[in-house]
Amino acid sequence: MRAETRHILAEHALDRSLIRWIMRRVGNPNISIRLWNGDEFRVTEAPPVACMELCERRAVFELLLSPSVGFGESYSKGLIKIHGDFRAFANEVTFAITRQQNGRYYGPKIRSMLYAIRSNTLARSWRNIHHHYDIGNEFYKLWLDERMVYTCAYFDKPAASLAQAQLAKLEHVCRKLKLRPGQKVIEAGCGFGALALHMAEHYGVNVIALNNSSEQVSFAREIAAAKGLDNRVKFVEDDYRNIGGRCDAFVSVGMLEHVGLTNFTTLGELIRRSLKPEGIGLIHSIARSYPDRVDPWIGKHIFPGGHIPSLSEMMAVFEPQRFSILDVENLRPHYARTCAMWLENFEAVADEVAEMYGEEFVRMWRLYLAGSSAGFQSGTLQLYQILFAPLGSNNVPWTRDYQYLRESGSH
Amino acid sequence: MRAETRHILAEHALDRSLIRWIMRRVGNPNISIRLWNGDEFRVTEAPPVACMELCERRAVFELLLSPSVGFGESYSKGLIKIHGDFRAFANEVTFAITRQQNGRYYGPKIRSMLYAIRSNTLARSWRNIHHHYDIGNEFYKLWLDERMVYTCAYFDKPAASLAQAQLAKLEHVCRKLKLRPGQKVIEAGCGFGALALHMAEHYGVNVIALNNSSEQVSFAREIAAAKGLDNRVKFVEDDYRNIGGRCDAFVSVGMLEHVGLTNFTTLGELIRRSLKPEGIGLIHSIARSYPDRVDPWIGKHIFPGGHIPSLSEMMAVFEPQRFSILDVENLRPHYARTCAMWLENFEAVADEVAEMYGEEFVRMWRLYLAGSSAGFQSGTLQLYQILFAPLGSNNVPWTRDYQYLRESGSH
Repeated sequence: MRAETRHILAEHALDRSLIRWIMRRVGNPNISIRLWNGDEFRVTEAPPVACMELCERRAVFELLLSPSVGFGESYSKGLIKIHGDFRAFANEVTFAITRQQNGRYYGPKIRSMLYAIRSNTLARSWRNIHHHYDIGNEFYKLWLDERMVYTCAYFDKPAASLAQAQLAKLEHVCRKLKLRPGQKVIEAGCGFGALALHMAEHYGVNVIALNNSSEQVSFAREIAAAKGLDNRVKFVEDDYRNIGGRCDAFVSVGMLEHVGLTNFTTLGELIRRSLKPEGIGLIHSIARSYPDRVDPWIGKHIFPGGHIPSLSEMMAVFEPQRFSILDVENLRPHYARTCAMWLENFEAVADEVAEMYGEEFVRMWRLYLAGSSAGFQSGTLQLYQILFAPLGSNNVPWTRDYQYLRESGSH
Repeated sequence: MRAETRHILAEHALDRSLIRWIMRRVGNPNISIRLWNGDEFRVTEAPPVACMELCERRAVFELLLSPSVGFGESYSKGLIKIHGDFRAFANEVTFAITRQQNGRYYGPKIRSMLYAIRSNTLARSWRNIHHHYDIGNEFYKLWLDERMVYTCAYFDKPAASLAQAQLAKLEHVCRKLKLRPGQKVIEAGCGFGALALHMAEHYGVNVIALNNSSEQVSFAREIAAAKGLDNRVKFVEDDYRNIGGRCDAFVSVGMLEHVGLTNFTTLGELIRRSLKPEGIGLIHSIARSYPDRVDPWIGKHIFPGGHIPSLSEMMAVFEPQRFSILDVENLRPHYARTCAMWLENFEAVADEVAEMYGEEFVRMWRLYLAGSSAGFQSGTLQLYQILFAPLGSNNVPWTRDYQYLRESGSH
């Protein structure tokens, strides 16, 4: 008996050592760890914000192999459980990792460059986009706002609801583009069509909107027909690389993340060829403060083929084409709140989602939404709106008053 | 006689061919050329905006060796004269060159990288800054605004005078920094001290302002003493590399152009060490839409050691330190107007300047001011204000309303 007890203690001592080592790698978050035998311990002095239960020993090995993929898969499968507020847990771990990585630069930069080599061919892009966006419109309807906007909202007023903030975002984009009736707009990556429809309905422009996802395009076409806008908005199920024609404004909201670093120059060339000399463009994209590859679990299960660029990496779209960058706005806190609101909506329908897609799917999406919110909250992720114009165009506003004041002087 | 005539004709035919070749290299601007013998001809069909007189044949060889340095030096020496509106001439040539270069990217990018190897040591920086800024305060007093602001103004109202627009720029910078009384501000490269004095006087902050130019520092200290602000603004005659202490806000207006590409990471490190975790910073600098070296004549005669970075190059200040870029604003048209207004003031006192410094100096400065205005007008040059914060700081405004609206909601 004594020998066996000693053996169990030694065994757990090794597990605890491994777990402490893993926790150090992720910056020692203030969480407690519960083992499969019910033992619970902390890795820091501070009171834990949540408890991570490892239901089986193999969860330790999964975490050892990759804190990102290992945690994501183990949590999704139910091998790891989180007791307490899940979003608080996700925030705590993300902030700890962010603090931990602070200062390292060249390692992440090289990872980012190597990762970029995995290029997005047309066929692979289609598969990648299909993976995430063709889950089924019914799923997105359950927790997105009424316009089905699946990108960062803009909380121009602190108390705005999600629907109001999404409308404010559409308006913010339209105002930045200074749209005028009769203009032609190309939108690359149009989601469920909310922006294209808003531009046509409220700014009187003609829109060609491209999207790789057939489910989203069907949805968008239905709305256009119902609103009688199908003569002014053409939804095209195609890749951005097949853009044709000239436009007064080019806009892309939430597509650059899927384009991949090696295709940035191609995208820039396409925009230059599409945009009239006095035209204007806006790219709205998730970004980073510094180059790094996408989180491995996100890359494997959520957005295969995606790359979250830093601002210097994004310049590969603009600088070879000699575009003038007119304005860059960082909406990071807005996306933290948007994701938190999506998660709240999602939790309210989690049982329904579980019936449709299973428990593992629910846990995967919970982790993705909470993790994204934490990423934006901690500064690991940024959200940029980049406004640009062809070199030498003087058809640009002198001040940004027009984005904020209804009545403003003109130059 | 007939043989001699034929010889003269042939001789001029060769000169004309050489000149036409040079004009093609700079994009065939709509100007006429007058030779030393009085002959005048055009290189384009359109009516010329001005006439360039080559007073001696050797001007052709100067232009051949370098359209930039050759023109600049020949014009300054009086070997080349411009008949007609000088600014219209500078605009026409700059636009032609810009159109001509459109599309080339990797050549300029490599030039930019090679040029960066000429590093700015402390001693060389001092010499370079001394070259331009210690001409004499009396000179700058003749044509700058009353506050002696020698950076891009902000024409928030179309009819603003230069002095009003410089004040609006100081305000625009202070509002972006969200200064509060009692805060500590570090300003790197403070010019004649206008911003430091404005921040202390109107925002109640304590400022440490660094500048390499002894003439400017003396001037700034006198004003501080006269205004009774010398207890709250400390003007230090030193290089930005000797910054010490911690601050709530870091600001630098018109210094990055002199820092040199190879020192960007060092500057970023200094800022990270100086800035409190919840602090905010602003860098205001001339920039380009794409990487390229500085104009050779400007580099030789006006700003030795300077480098005008593209936005991707500027990121070397921010990304290795993991700063969050909060906001980038392009003030290009404002700098075109600022330079044009400086030139107007300068022309009004050109005789006085000629008495102080000679005719060659006057022509050099006319070319520099008109050329800069044309550079900003054509898009060859850009002017960015970049607002940034340490990674993870959530002490940042959600919207930019505060920059534009006096009364705005807070999050």
